[in-house]
Amino acid sequence: MSTGFFGDIQKVKYEGPESTNPLAFRHYNKDEVILGKRMEDHLRFAVAYWHTFAWEGGDPFGGRTFERPWYGEEMSKAKLKADVAFELFSLLDVPFYCFHDADVRPEGKNFAENTKNLNEIVDYFAEKQAATGVNLLWGTANLFSNRRYMSGAATNPDPDIFRFAAATVKTCIDATQKLGGQNYVLWGGREGYETLLNTDLSRELDQLGRFVNLVVEYKYKIGFKGTILIEPKPQEPTKHQYDYDVATVYGFLKKYGLENEVKVNIEQGHAILAGHSFEHELALANALGIFGSIDMNRNDYQSGWDTDQFPNNVPEMALAYYQVLAGGGFKTGGTNFDAKLRRQSIEPDDLLIGHIGGMDACARGLKAAAKMIEDKALAKPLEDRYAGWNSADAQKMLRGEVSLGDIAAEVEKADINPKPRSGRQELLENIVNRYV
Amino acid sequence: MSTGFFGDIQKVKYEGPESTNPLAFRHYNKDEVILGKRMEDHLRFAVAYWHTFAWEGGDPFGGRTFERPWYGEEMSKAKLKADVAFELFSLLDVPFYCFHDADVRPEGKNFAENTKNLNEIVDYFAEKQAATGVNLLWGTANLFSNRRYMSGAATNPDPDIFRFAAATVKTCIDATQKLGGQNYVLWGGREGYETLLNTDLSRELDQLGRFVNLVVEYKYKIGFKGTILIEPKPQEPTKHQYDYDVATVYGFLKKYGLENEVKVNIEQGHAILAGHSFEHELALANALGIFGSIDMNRNDYQSGWDTDQFPNNVPEMALAYYQVLAGGGFKTGGTNFDAKLRRQSIEPDDLLIGHIGGMDACARGLKAAAKMIEDKALAKPLEDRYAGWNSADAQKMLRGEVSLGDIAAEVEKADINPKPRSGRQELLENIVNRYV
Amino acid sequence: MSTGFFGDIQKVKYEGPESTNPLAFRHYNKDEVILGKRMEDHLRFAVAYWHTFAWEGGDPFGGRTFERPWYGEEMSKAKLKADVAFELFSLLDVPFYCFHDADVRPEGKNFAENTKNLNEIVDYFAEKQAATGVNLLWGTANLFSNRRYMSGAATNPDPDIFRFAAATVKTCIDATQKLGGQNYVLWGGREGYETLLNTDLSRELDQLGRFVNLVVEYKYKIGFKGTILIEPKPQEPTKHQYDYDVATVYGFLKKYGLENEVKVNIEQGHAILAGHSFEHELALANALGIFGSIDMNRNDYQSGWDTDQFPNNVPEMALAYYQVLAGGGFKTGGTNFDAKLRRQSIEPDDLLIGHIGGMDACARGLKAAAKMIEDKALAKPLEDRYAGWNSADAQKMLRGEVSLGDIAAEVEKADINPKPRSGRQELLENIVNRYV
Amino acid sequence: MSTGFFGDIQKVKYEGPESTNPLAFRHYNKDEVILGKRMEDHLRFAVAYWHTFAWEGGDPFGGRTFERPWYGEEMSKAKLKADVAFELFSLLDVPFYCFHDADVRPEGKNFAENTKNLNEIVDYFAEKQAATGVNLLWGTANLFSNRRYMSGAATNPDPDIFRFAAATVKTCIDATQKLGGQNYVLWGGREGYETLLNTDLSRELDQLGRFVNLVVEYKYKIGFKGTILIEPKPQEPTKHQYDYDVATVYGFLKKYGLENEVKVNIEQGHAILAGHSFEHELALANALGIFGSIDMNRNDYQSGWDTDQFPNNVPEMALAYYQVLAGGGFKTGGTNFDAKLRRQSIEPDDLLIGHIGGMDACARGLKAAAKMIEDKALAKPLEDRYAGWNSADAQKMLRGEVSLGDIAAEVEKADINPKPRSGRQELLENIVNRYV
Repeated sequence: MSTGFFGDIQKVKYEGPESTNPLAFRHYNKDEVILGKRMEDHLRFAVAYWHTFAWEGGDPFGGRTFERPWYGEEMSKAKLKADVAFELFSLLDVPFYCFHDADVRPEGKNFAENTKNLNEIVDYFAEKQAATGVNLLWGTANLFSNRRYMSGAATNPDPDIFRFAAATVKTCIDATQKLGGQNYVLWGGREGYETLLNTDLSRELDQLGRFVNLVVEYKYKIGFKGTILIEPKPQEPTKHQYDYDVATVYGFLKKYGLENEVKVNIEQGHAILAGHSFEHELALANALGIFGSIDMNRNDYQSGWDTDQFPNNVPEMALAYYQVLAGGGFKTGGTNFDAKLRRQSIEPDDLLIGHIGGMDACARGLKAAAKMIEDKALAKPLEDRYAGWNSADAQKMLRGEVSLGDIAAEVEKADINPKPRSGRQELLENIVNRYV
Repeated sequence: MSTGFFGDIQKVKYEGPESTNPLAFRHYNKDEVILGKRMEDHLRFAVAYWHTFAWEGGDPFGGRTFERPWYGEEMSKAKLKADVAFELFSLLDVPFYCFHDADVRPEGKNFAENTKNLNEIVDYFAEKQAATGVNLLWGTANLFSNRRYMSGAATNPDPDIFRFAAATVKTCIDATQKLGGQNYVLWGGREGYETLLNTDLSRELDQLGRFVNLVVEYKYKIGFKGTILIEPKPQEPTKHQYDYDVATVYGFLKKYGLENEVKVNIEQGHAILAGHSFEHELALANALGIFGSIDMNRNDYQSGWDTDQFPNNVPEMALAYYQVLAGGGFKTGGTNFDAKLRRQSIEPDDLLIGHIGGMDACARGLKAAAKMIEDKALAKPLEDRYAGWNSADAQKMLRGEVSLGDIAAEVEKADINPKPRSGRQELLENIVNRYV
Repeated sequence: MSTGFFGDIQKVKYEGPESTNPLAFRHYNKDEVILGKRMEDHLRFAVAYWHTFAWEGGDPFGGRTFERPWYGEEMSKAKLKADVAFELFSLLDVPFYCFHDADVRPEGKNFAENTKNLNEIVDYFAEKQAATGVNLLWGTANLFSNRRYMSGAATNPDPDIFRFAAATVKTCIDATQKLGGQNYVLWGGREGYETLLNTDLSRELDQLGRFVNLVVEYKYKIGFKGTILIEPKPQEPTKHQYDYDVATVYGFLKKYGLENEVKVNIEQGHAILAGHSFEHELALANALGIFGSIDMNRNDYQSGWDTDQFPNNVPEMALAYYQVLAGGGFKTGGTNFDAKLRRQSIEPDDLLIGHIGGMDACARGLKAAAKMIEDKALAKPLEDRYAGWNSADAQKMLRGEVSLGDIAAEVEKADINPKPRSGRQELLENIVNRYV
Repeated sequence: MSTGFFGDIQKVKYEGPESTNPLAFRHYNKDEVILGKRMEDHLRFAVAYWHTFAWEGGDPFGGRTFERPWYGEEMSKAKLKADVAFELFSLLDVPFYCFHDADVRPEGKNFAENTKNLNEIVDYFAEKQAATGVNLLWGTANLFSNRRYMSGAATNPDPDIFRFAAATVKTCIDATQKLGGQNYVLWGGREGYETLLNTDLSRELDQLGRFVNLVVEYKYKIGFKGTILIEPKPQEPTKHQYDYDVATVYGFLKKYGLENEVKVNIEQGHAILAGHSFEHELALANALGIFGSIDMNRNDYQSGWDTDQFPNNVPEMALAYYQVLAGGGFKTGGTNFDAKLRRQSIEPDDLLIGHIGGMDACARGLKAAAKMIEDKALAKPLEDRYAGWNSADAQKMLRGEVSLGDIAAEVEKADINPKPRSGRQELLENIVNRYV
């Protein structure tokens, strides 16, 4: 029944921190209970179909390095790819996967053929899901690879391309619903611009606002229960992407009346490209009430493009999961690896090893974060630092019950002349280092 | 009457493009009419008091390099500084200046003394303004240099520091109103964080939202007619500033109900630090309806901090003024030079030369932009590119009168399969190069 | 005879600055004499075969956007490509072109077939050159696109890949010599690393040192008169490229005894990626005596990858040509456009328009630079600034004829206590703005 | 005897990983033996006098935040500062410290007074060293803070400033020798440029080459046994610093015949600013034979300036110490904390806490690195990867005994057509994660 692609490799097991088996988990122990919940239910791991099965190892300076028996545009290849994909999901024992339409079906010559192809694969996936117990975290549409989208999809100057994109999204939401997907993601692949010289920002933002509203309206119409997610990215492929970062997406949602309908899927690599730390984007999404899900793949700090590497820096990941837990943990979201193997990692077992390392690092990060939460290691000093704002007077001021004039009069009268207090950054960093 | 600081230098005059006089304008000819308006009324130049008169040439690796007779914390020094400042304004023949409270008055030992000192200088400025005809473009409060603000002003964990800051802003708005200032600027000096470990983002954003609302309420109360401006900056001095960029400020304004009350003052250097081009920030502010004013000083593209240099790249500046003109030009805003002389430029005439070069480059940029507007050099191709969206069907779609399902059905039925069209970026860049 | 690819477009002519013809030169007037030399002989323009004819418009997020009749791996396609290429060279009236082996010949199944294919095309090119008068500025080998080079060519851990690469370079030098090429370029495509974890820097640097020495030895053996050039680039495709920037290449050349044999081909985009201005790299190469040639294509300042755009910012280009002229101008080198059309610029005439804009901007930059040289606009102030070092005492100190102790004794005895002088940066920037 | 500055805090002790005492070491256990050497002898910690005692908490947007009783320019203050400094060294139990002249002595009005002041403090330090057992890792001269150096020291256009700088360095080497310093550091504070418009690169590089040769000649003359170190930095305060990075310094040393005389002191923050990882700079210095010492302070990855924070990311630090150990460990060098407290960390105990956290993180990094060395965890796969190069044929090729023509003939004859092998990056990253 097996395709044989992974040879005789067996399901990856937890063997504990001392194991040196490269095909075992050392930290991810799915049934271990952390803060009252199984680790699997906290982390909600998903494998990304595109990088893991559809990406061929090319970069701007060279083509395919991987050799996979499923490359090609026939339906039989698509099914072989699916067979191997669900084998990988099972070997890794992950609960979820994610896909774009273009990852999983042969490209058709028009919309109708794309839809037909997609539906055939969706049926095939449905069987696979039933057989393996692996579920869909989210579906999405690839609105950027085909040359028709070279100038954007929703934000294209040609309304017919908007239409083609919208129709495609409809089929992908349908597919996601059919497969029980828990979220639907909009990643603004080429929703942005190369040059302002040929770009009308007002028009394009309005087009995008309408597009996302179409999606939300359709969700309600068909009764899709999942969450609609936007994935911020600042640039690449375009010079400027409209979904630049969490703050930008929030302003967009507010402008188009979507702030209660759409949440964000935050990627470490995109945060870094936007000039932010990953934990900043997570903390901000929590503060703005729009946190949804994460892509747990890192960028290289010295590279100016999206390197999509498996994560491995545990102290940084602990701070990320700290924000996730502090915001209440994942609801419909999860931890997706939108990660590429390095193009030199051409062996089948590299696919497993990359995911195992990432999953183990996530598990360590989660455990450290959970312990910090339990101990109130950071929460207690934080609460103390802002304690002054809990006073009745300060609350009144925050509620808008005193005016600027009132405050000035009070400062003058009482000669308020406050002294600064230490921010204790080094102490807090040392405390974190007790946990990681 | 003259302080003699500038020796025998006379008022800087327009001498035309062939002049090699370093103390003459070659392009800025204030009475020349462009697009039906005098150049002076288009550009609305302002000199920044702080860098030009209060900054001493220090950087993180060395102290004062300038030698100015007005350095010191006595009132007599402050008045000497004002004398020289208005001499410079007159020599340059600029219509406006801008200041922070801390630039112009001696630092007092408490709020009352600061206020008293400020008021004394405001009276002195009022006389100077009357004598010279130079006016105030905007006033602002320095809420970042004093050590009391080391952890922020409005966003400080200590509500007494919020109070002190609020009281200070009140005095600065009063001063701005008294001097006929056309805008009041809020620059979030240390409104941001050094580490998330000691920061509660939700609290701090709410504090900042309240603070800006206090300012707006006060504006109405006292009948101040100017515009309230926020100046975006992504980082420096803090690791992350809350007013990161135009998109972030827009989201903030929407969240706190301020989007119709507050506009933005955009600086080239801050745009660059945020990973954007200057024209992006301008175009976006226009698209979002919050464009207010500009700080026309550039950052070095190879330096990762705010270098605040006088602008000199005319093609880039033409694209900036193109956005300003495309949005209807300045209303209460203007072109402020928030520019530092290089710390090695220690001669008095360097102060004039820096401004002259900047003003001339602005004039060239403005003229090129105006010609592009007149010729519809960019507007015509832009309109053509989006022409498809003007159709009745496309407009209906934009207005939300068709659903995702309708669109998909139409794409399938009509077999819509659009072909891409050239974006013509190189052609448009060549067209711009006809004008600059 | 014509392929018809460019329709009825005729040879591009100089029409002067007032022309609005998008297919005319406005500034590049090849016979105009500047500083005693024809503009064509100053600029020595070359078209890059790879981006202009072999690149298909793909990026990491999407495939081919261009539709060209010559795409494919057959020899007939390669010849059609050559036909169109020489048509373009003739329409643009450029004196030179550049190529990699892989741009021009079908990929063979082994070394022998690659060589055979290359040789067939070289013969075809030789005829074309004779017919058109277009010559070869430089040839080079593509040692990065084929998957065999995924871990480097000269710096590969496998000596057989070193061998394959070396053999390939031999055939490319032979081809370059046969076609009368004036230079041979080594661009370290994947000579670098993705991770230090699997990299032995000492070994790889020694391998690279040997490789370049092999090339130099071979040059002498066959009597190739051209210059060997290394093209610095800091990163991309690899995380770290060994030929990082001019300073790094200089150290490498010194270490392996090559500093008198090899010069540098400097690209604006690569300079920017390395954190330098273009003029820095040019000035440094002059100071170190290794300046050779330039790739005149720019990177976007807001993008962290190699965007390879046609240049258009004249003030920046004037400063670049100022350095070229200050160093004595090109010898065997020239101005190559290693520039990609934007992938949205899919029309045949976009290929011409991109080059025309770039050539015109170069011409403007050159003219401005030449005028600054003639006027000693920058040279005179520079000489004055360092005049103190021309004294006999200072020269003696520079020659090493006084010791640290001597100097200290003199400073103490004479109480040397120098005062700083203005660096005059703004004045010099204003002077440059008189010329651009 | 104590100054009382640190209150009743006692010498910091090792209490083991479970300790929650913020004033204890959890990992740094100086007498613990790692790879046959005491931890103290491996790490060779040093405290930097300047940031810890002379920096006042200012940044470009605000002044002093710290309140220290020793601020001021009198000799009595300088001695009080020394008293507290040696108290801190003793409390932390570090074996070394480092200083610039300007950190430790009052600024005089001329060279003679500076020298006199320095010598007085050197005598005071000598007593302190004898009393505490703390030694000098390195001395250096501050050639950047005084306004006389605003345009550089050795690279100044004025030879008298070169002289003043040279004389100052002489006094600092004398002081370093007298105090038994193990190294002397040259950090090119303002050896660089702000603009090429006023800079003659050739002259300035020659001046710098002579300057460093003067230092080396003087070292031999006085019999100073320490190592001369250059500390690379790419920029800040200047736009471009001549000692940009390790590769640049190596080229400079080769050019001026200094490669056997001078080594490098590498700082994590400077590596990051130059676009490199810290381990890259360390590995390269090893490969080039110029590794000397390290400054173990980090930059924030999202900030574009030198943030000089205490290090805390253990996985990154393990990779750094891995390179240090792989190169044979420190000889005369050590681990200096060129780290600033955050300016909000205003309490005396913050000074201790910052260092304790940094020392503990270094200890963890060292231990992980040592274990990887012992296990040959990375060395074994590395050796295997390059094994092909150990063959006789490959060695012959490396030694230059075969020509390009020979190689090409062999490739053709034997039809060498190598297949790529997996780079195994993810596997190696997972292996590292077993150790950190």
